[in-house]
Amino acid sequence: MDTFLLDHQLRKFLEEDLEHGDVTTDAIFTDETAMVQCIAREPLVACGMETVAARIFCLLGGTSEFGQLTPDGSRQKKGAVLFSVRGPVRTLLRGERVALNLVQRLCGIATLTARFVDKVQGLDVRIVDTRKTTPGLRMLEKYAVRCGGGANHRYSLSDGVLVKDNHIAACGSITEAVHRLRASITHTLKIEVECDTLAQVEECLACKVEIIMLDNMDTTTMTEAVMMINGRAMIEASGGVSLETIRRIAETGVDIISVGTLTHSAPAVDIGLDWI
Amino acid sequence: MDTFLLDHQLRKFLEEDLEHGDVTTDAIFTDETAMVQCIAREPLVACGMETVAARIFCLLGGTSEFGQLTPDGSRQKKGAVLFSVRGPVRTLLRGERVALNLVQRLCGIATLTARFVDKVQGLDVRIVDTRKTTPGLRMLEKYAVRCGGGANHRYSLSDGVLVKDNHIAACGSITEAVHRLRASITHTLKIEVECDTLAQVEECLACKVEIIMLDNMDTTTMTEAVMMINGRAMIEASGGVSLETIRRIAETGVDIISVGTLTHSAPAVDIGLDWI
Amino acid sequence: MDTFLLDHQLRKFLEEDLEHGDVTTDAIFTDETAMVQCIAREPLVACGMETVAARIFCLLGGTSEFGQLTPDGSRQKKGAVLFSVRGPVRTLLRGERVALNLVQRLCGIATLTARFVDKVQGLDVRIVDTRKTTPGLRMLEKYAVRCGGGANHRYSLSDGVLVKDNHIAACGSITEAVHRLRASITHTLKIEVECDTLAQVEECLACKVEIIMLDNMDTTTMTEAVMMINGRAMIEASGGVSLETIRRIAETGVDIISVGTLTHSAPAVDIGLDWI
Amino acid sequence: MDTFLLDHQLRKFLEEDLEHGDVTTDAIFTDETAMVQCIAREPLVACGMETVAARIFCLLGGTSEFGQLTPDGSRQKKGAVLFSVRGPVRTLLRGERVALNLVQRLCGIATLTARFVDKVQGLDVRIVDTRKTTPGLRMLEKYAVRCGGGANHRYSLSDGVLVKDNHIAACGSITEAVHRLRASITHTLKIEVECDTLAQVEECLACKVEIIMLDNMDTTTMTEAVMMINGRAMIEASGGVSLETIRRIAETGVDIISVGTLTHSAPAVDIGLDWI
Amino acid sequence: MDTFLLDHQLRKFLEEDLEHGDVTTDAIFTDETAMVQCIAREPLVACGMETVAARIFCLLGGTSEFGQLTPDGSRQKKGAVLFSVRGPVRTLLRGERVALNLVQRLCGIATLTARFVDKVQGLDVRIVDTRKTTPGLRMLEKYAVRCGGGANHRYSLSDGVLVKDNHIAACGSITEAVHRLRASITHTLKIEVECDTLAQVEECLACKVEIIMLDNMDTTTMTEAVMMINGRAMIEASGGVSLETIRRIAETGVDIISVGTLTHSAPAVDIGLDWI
Amino acid sequence: MDTFLLDHQLRKFLEEDLEHGDVTTDAIFTDETAMVQCIAREPLVACGMETVAARIFCLLGGTSEFGQLTPDGSRQKKGAVLFSVRGPVRTLLRGERVALNLVQRLCGIATLTARFVDKVQGLDVRIVDTRKTTPGLRMLEKYAVRCGGGANHRYSLSDGVLVKDNHIAACGSITEAVHRLRASITHTLKIEVECDTLAQVEECLACKVEIIMLDNMDTTTMTEAVMMINGRAMIEASGGVSLETIRRIAETGVDIISVGTLTHSAPAVDIGLDWI
Repeated sequence: MDTFLLDHQLRKFLEEDLEHGDVTTDAIFTDETAMVQCIAREPLVACGMETVAARIFCLLGGTSEFGQLTPDGSRQKKGAVLFSVRGPVRTLLRGERVALNLVQRLCGIATLTARFVDKVQGLDVRIVDTRKTTPGLRMLEKYAVRCGGGANHRYSLSDGVLVKDNHIAACGSITEAVHRLRASITHTLKIEVECDTLAQVEECLACKVEIIMLDNMDTTTMTEAVMMINGRAMIEASGGVSLETIRRIAETGVDIISVGTLTHSAPAVDIGLDWI
Repeated sequence: MDTFLLDHQLRKFLEEDLEHGDVTTDAIFTDETAMVQCIAREPLVACGMETVAARIFCLLGGTSEFGQLTPDGSRQKKGAVLFSVRGPVRTLLRGERVALNLVQRLCGIATLTARFVDKVQGLDVRIVDTRKTTPGLRMLEKYAVRCGGGANHRYSLSDGVLVKDNHIAACGSITEAVHRLRASITHTLKIEVECDTLAQVEECLACKVEIIMLDNMDTTTMTEAVMMINGRAMIEASGGVSLETIRRIAETGVDIISVGTLTHSAPAVDIGLDWI
Repeated sequence: MDTFLLDHQLRKFLEEDLEHGDVTTDAIFTDETAMVQCIAREPLVACGMETVAARIFCLLGGTSEFGQLTPDGSRQKKGAVLFSVRGPVRTLLRGERVALNLVQRLCGIATLTARFVDKVQGLDVRIVDTRKTTPGLRMLEKYAVRCGGGANHRYSLSDGVLVKDNHIAACGSITEAVHRLRASITHTLKIEVECDTLAQVEECLACKVEIIMLDNMDTTTMTEAVMMINGRAMIEASGGVSLETIRRIAETGVDIISVGTLTHSAPAVDIGLDWI
Repeated sequence: MDTFLLDHQLRKFLEEDLEHGDVTTDAIFTDETAMVQCIAREPLVACGMETVAARIFCLLGGTSEFGQLTPDGSRQKKGAVLFSVRGPVRTLLRGERVALNLVQRLCGIATLTARFVDKVQGLDVRIVDTRKTTPGLRMLEKYAVRCGGGANHRYSLSDGVLVKDNHIAACGSITEAVHRLRASITHTLKIEVECDTLAQVEECLACKVEIIMLDNMDTTTMTEAVMMINGRAMIEASGGVSLETIRRIAETGVDIISVGTLTHSAPAVDIGLDWI
Repeated sequence: MDTFLLDHQLRKFLEEDLEHGDVTTDAIFTDETAMVQCIAREPLVACGMETVAARIFCLLGGTSEFGQLTPDGSRQKKGAVLFSVRGPVRTLLRGERVALNLVQRLCGIATLTARFVDKVQGLDVRIVDTRKTTPGLRMLEKYAVRCGGGANHRYSLSDGVLVKDNHIAACGSITEAVHRLRASITHTLKIEVECDTLAQVEECLACKVEIIMLDNMDTTTMTEAVMMINGRAMIEASGGVSLETIRRIAETGVDIISVGTLTHSAPAVDIGLDWI
Repeated sequence: MDTFLLDHQLRKFLEEDLEHGDVTTDAIFTDETAMVQCIAREPLVACGMETVAARIFCLLGGTSEFGQLTPDGSRQKKGAVLFSVRGPVRTLLRGERVALNLVQRLCGIATLTARFVDKVQGLDVRIVDTRKTTPGLRMLEKYAVRCGGGANHRYSLSDGVLVKDNHIAACGSITEAVHRLRASITHTLKIEVECDTLAQVEECLACKVEIIMLDNMDTTTMTEAVMMINGRAMIEASGGVSLETIRRIAETGVDIISVGTLTHSAPAVDIGLDWI
C-alpha cells in the first residue's frame, strides 16, 4: 500500500476528528511525551500497524518513535503487542481514536477473511471480496482482505466487466450484452457474466464468456454447472456464502468464491491502546 | 443534514467506485431509462433515503424522478418500499452500489439504536453514540443515531471536553486537570471526566465537574455513584453496554448511556434494489 | 495551534500572492541568501512568529534558519526583534508579504485583546471573542485572542448553542426554544440565550438556562439582572463594549464580556521587515 | 466579479462557520421561512450585495428570493435597505454571519476608498491599492477598491514588476536590476522601481524605467522628482498617505497614489440584518 | 464521458487561464451577448463539442444556448460548423481559448486514429492507444481515440497487467513473473507479457499467458510469432508503428496494434472560432 | 520553477496513472532497488530533469539518489545521459511513464523553441509563446519555452491586456476599447491591440497603444507597418509563423514574434529510459 495514495485520506480522517483542535488536550498538556502500546485483546490477523497507525502519528507532526510494528498479515495471539510508539502526548491523544477506529476495522476484515480461507484449506479455490466496501475505505479494506489471505475482485466499475441480471434484462440477452462488450472493452479485461440458471450458463459458454458467476445457486445446481462448464471458463460462486456454507460450496469445484461479508459485515476486533 | 455539507463527500464516494467510468454499462447502454425500487428485506428504521440515496442519483446527472422517499426515522416492515426512482439506466447502474453501501449501513445504525432505545423505554435516560465511527462517515453515522431515537455525544475533539484516564495520569490528578481546563476552555462547553472509582467520583464532585462518566463500573458500584452524586452532576455510563445489560444499567439512575456498538458494530441491514 | 491544521491554509495564502511565480525576483536572483529581521515598530503582544511566519518560509522550500522566534503572547517593546531568518533571497522575497499581512493582523488582535484585558484587571471577568472574524482566518484569529489574554466564545455554529432574538421570535418563546433544544442537543454543550429585557432573564431562569447573555443593556439594568440571576446562571455581557465602557460593564458583576471589536476591528500593528 | 471564481471561496467560508451543522437552529426549526433586510447603519458605498451576500444564501440551498440588491459602487445613506431576502429560516440563520462579516468588510473598503478619492477630486490622479490585503480575500478586497472609485495595483507577484529596495541592495544597482528584468520579463508588463532618493530617480530615467515609485518622500522632494521626470515615466507616490496628506501629495503632480490603508486598515462599516 | 467525472478538470483548466479574471474583457464589456461558431478548417473527426466545449461555457455561468453540437465520432468536411453558441460576450471570451485548446487536441487525436483505422480496413485488427497520454488529460484523450474508431489499452497501472522487459530482467524470468502474478492479481484481469524474441514467446505460451505483446519485431519475425502462437493467446504488436507500416504489421495476423503516436504526437487540427 | 507551485500538479498526474496501485509491479517486486538512466535518443534542449523527473520520484516516496541532472536549457547530443536515478524498483516503475510523458513534451517544446530562436540569430527580435498551451500544463510549458531561449507572452487573461478583433467588433472601435481600458486597468500592464490593417495601426498610434500586434499580415504590409510605427510602439508579429517564414518576418523589423506552434504543436522528443 502506497503512502503516496493513502496520506490524503488519512489527513481527511484526522481533520474529521480534530476539526479546529483538541480542546481537552491543549488545555492540559504542553510538551510532555509518553509511550503507548497497542494490544490485541483477542486473537487476530494484523493489518495496518505500519501503513496506517504509524503513518497517522507521523502526519500529526512532532517526533514519534515506533518500537514495534507487527507485519501485516501475521496471526497474533490475544495479548500480543501490535505496535508501540513514543511521542508527544498531544500527538498521541490526537491520533489514537482515528488510528484505533481504522486498525480495528482492518484487522477485523483480515481476521474474518482468514477464517473463511481456513475453512477451504486444501481446496484449490480463491476467496475474494466484492464492491460492498465502506464508502471512502475501499483501498484499505481490499488491502485487509489480501492480508487475511484472500484476493480481490475488481476494484471499481472501471477495471472489471461484470454483466449482472439488470444488464441482461435491459439489453435483451447475455449474447447481445457480450456482443456489445466484445466490440468496445479494453482487451486486457475478461468478461464475467452473472448466471441464475443453467440455461444462462449454457448461453455464456456459447459466447465464450471468460468468467461465469453462479449467483445464489444451491450446491446441487452448482455442481451441475461446474460439470457443464468443464474448464471452459473460470467459475465464481456468489451469494449465500457463510462460514457454515463455504466448504460445501468450495467442494463443488468452483474456482472463486466471492464473499460480501468480508467487508460489509466483518466485526471490528478488540484492540486496546495502553499508556505506559 | 445539509446537502451543502454532504455533497462533497458523496462525490468522493462515487469517484472511488467509478474511477474513470463504468466499462460494462457504457458498452451495453446508451440512453435507456428504467425504474428501480429499494425494498426492506428485514424490519428496519429508515435513514438516508432522501438525503443520501436520492442525492447520489442527482449528483450523477441526468433527470431522475423519485416516486417515494421514506422519511428518516420511520420504522418500516419487511417488504416496504423505501424509495423508488426512475432515471437513465447508466445513472442507476452507476449509483446503485454506493447508494446501497451507504443506506444499508445507515439504516443498520438507526435500527440498532432503536433496539437500544426500546430496551430503556419508560426510563429517563438518553442513549448516545461515541467517536467510534467509521473514518470519513461521522456526520452521516451520527445522523443515523439520531434517526434511531438516540442522541449524539460530542462530535469531535473540538466540541466537547472529556478528561480520560490518560489525561489524568499524565497530568497528576483530576483536580489539576479540571483546574487547567477551567482556565482556558470556551465557557459554552461543559467538562466531563471519566471515573473508574468512587474516589474519583468524589474528587469530581469536589471540583464541580459538570458531567461524570462512570467507566466500566459494575451496576452495584454505579448505583452507589449515582447516590453519591445525587443530582450534583450529569451522569454518563460507559463501557460494557449491550442489549442484554443496558436496562440494568439504566435502572441505576444514570442520565446518559454511551454505546460504541451503535456505530462501530451495527450490522448492515438487508436492503434490496429491484429493477422493475 | 496545529501545523497539521494550518499548513493547507498557509499554502492557499501563498498561492494567492504567488499565482504562477514572482516575476521580479526570478529575473534578478538565482541562489543568493540573505537575512531578514522582523521588528516591532510599536509596542505589541506577539503572535504568530513561529506558528505562522516561520512556517511560511518552510513551506516555500529551501533551507531557512530561524535565529529568534518570540513566544506567542509575550509583550514586546517598540524596536524588539520579533524573529529573524536566514535563507534563500527568492524564498524570503516570496514569503515576506504574506507573512507580514498575517502577523500584523494577529499581533493587532493580540495587542487589542491585551488592552481590554488590562482594563478589567483585578476583576473576576473573562474577555471573549465572537464569530465576527475574518472569513477564512477564524482559527488564527481566535488563537490571537488567546495570546492576548482573552478566551474564546464558541468557534462555530456547531460547537455552541446560542439562542438569539431571531430564534426566539420565530419560535414563539424562550421557553419553547429551550425545550426543543434540551430534547436534541449534545449533552456536553451548555445552552446560552440572548436577553434584551429583564422579563426575558426571568424566563431564562425559569427554564434553567446555563448562560444568559445580556445584550445591549445599560449598566443599571445589567446590575439589576446580575442581582436577579444571583449565581443561578453564568452571565455574558454583549454589545456596546469599548475600551471606555468595559470596566463599568465588568463592575456590574458579569462573568464574561464578549467583544466583537477584538477581531473585526483590531488595527493591524506596525511591524517592519528589515534586510541585513 | 466571477461567480465561477468566487464560489469555492464562499463555500470554504461557510464550512468554517458551519463545521458539521448549526446545532441551535436545527434543534428549533424545521421548514419555516422568513424575510430579512440588510440595513446601512451609517452612510456607505455598497459592495457585495449581489456578488457575495445573495450568492451565500444560494449556495446554502433551498429557494431564496431577493427583493432588492443594491448595485456595487452606489453611495447609500444611513438607513438604506441594501438587500432583502426571503427564504428558509435555516438557510438565513446559517448564512447571515458569514454574509455580514464579508459585506461589512467590503463596504468598509469601498467606503474608505471613496473618501480618499473624494479628497483628490478635480486632480488627475488615481488612487490604487497594494498587496497589503487580508490573506484569502485579495480578489474580493481589490474588487471593493474598484467599487469605491479606486483602481488596482498589481494583483500578485506574478502580474507586475516592482523593484524594491531589497532587490536593488541585493543586486547592486537599479541599472543592473532593470537590465536583468528587460532580458526576461513578459513584454506586456511595465517595470516599476521604488526610489528613495532623487539620485535613484535619475538612475531610473537613465534606464528608461516605465513607472517610478517615490517611496516615503516628503512633498518638497516629491515635487522636485516630478519636475525631474517631466513626463518621461509614470509616477507613483507611496508611503505615509492618509486622508490628511493625500491632497498635498496629489498636488505634487504624481499620477498614482498607492494606499495600503485601503485594505489593511479600513474599518468595517456598520450594517444590520433585520428580521421582518 | 461523464460530466460528473469531467467537470472538476474543466474547472481547473478554466482557472488556469482565468486566474483572477479577464482584465481586457471586463474593462470593455458589461452584459452584451453574441454568437460564435466553431468551424472545421480542415477535414476532421469531431470530438468534444458537447462534452467539452459546451460544458465549458455552462461552467462559466450565464445562459448560453447551443445551436448545433456535432456528434462525437462523426467525420466532418472542411468548413463544417462544429458547434454554435449564443451567450454573454464575457462568457464567450473567457471560455473560447480553453475550449479551442481542448477541442483541437481531441479532434486531432480522433482524426489521426481514424487515419490509422482506415489503413487497416478489411482486416480483423484493433487499433489501441497506450499510456503515453498528456498528464492530466488521459480520460479525455482515451475517449478521443474511441471517437476515432480505435479502442483503449489499459487505462492505468491499476487496471491492466503488463509485464515489461524491466519486470522480467529484475525478476529473473517470464515464468517466475507470471507465477507471482497468478498468485495475487484480480481474476478479472488478463496477463500480458512483452516479448522481444521468439524464445520469449515460447516461454509465454508455456505459462499460458493470455496476451503476448510482440515488441519492436520486424514483420518477418512477427509472422513467425503469429504462427507459433496459433490462436493460443491474443497478440498485440507494438513499436515502430506508423501510417506507412501499419498495414503490413496488421497483415501478419496480429489481433491488436498499439500506437503511442495516437496520443503523444497527434497534430492539433485547425479549428476556428468565428464571431457572428 | 517553484516546487511549491508544482507539487500538487505532479501528484495529480501520478494519481491519474496509479489510480489504486500498480498491480503488475506489486505482484512481482518487494523491496529491490535498481538504477535507471534517461537517454537522449535525438539531439535536444534539456528541460525538466531536476524540476520534474527527479521530483516525481521523490513524491512517490522511498529514498532515491540522483546521479546526474542535466541543467535546464542545456543543449544535449544524441546519446547523452539526461539524468540517472537509483531507487526502489517499485518507485521507479511507478514513476517512469509520467516522468517520460512530461519530460518528452517539455524537451520537445524547449527544442523547437531553440530551433526558432536559431533562425533569427543576429536579429534583435524576441520569440514568445501564446496561450495555446495544453490545459493543465501552462506553467510547465511556458517554462520550457524559456529553457529553449524564448520568452513568454502574457500568462493568462489576468496579467496582460490584449484587444482582439472580437473585442473591437463588439465594442465599436479600437479607440473606444482603449479608452475603456485606460480608465480601469492596472497601471503596470501595457495595452496591446491586434491589427489586421494599416488603418487599424494608424488608429492604435493615435491612441498611443503600447504594443501593436500585426496579425496575419504579409511581410510587405508588415514592413510598411513597422515604418509607420517607427518606434512609437512595440511591435509583435503573429500568425503564419513557421521555421520557414520566421526569418523573413523578423527581418521586417518587428520586436516580437509570437509562435503558437511552440506549445500546441511541438513534437515530443525521443527520450529513452534504460535500466542498468
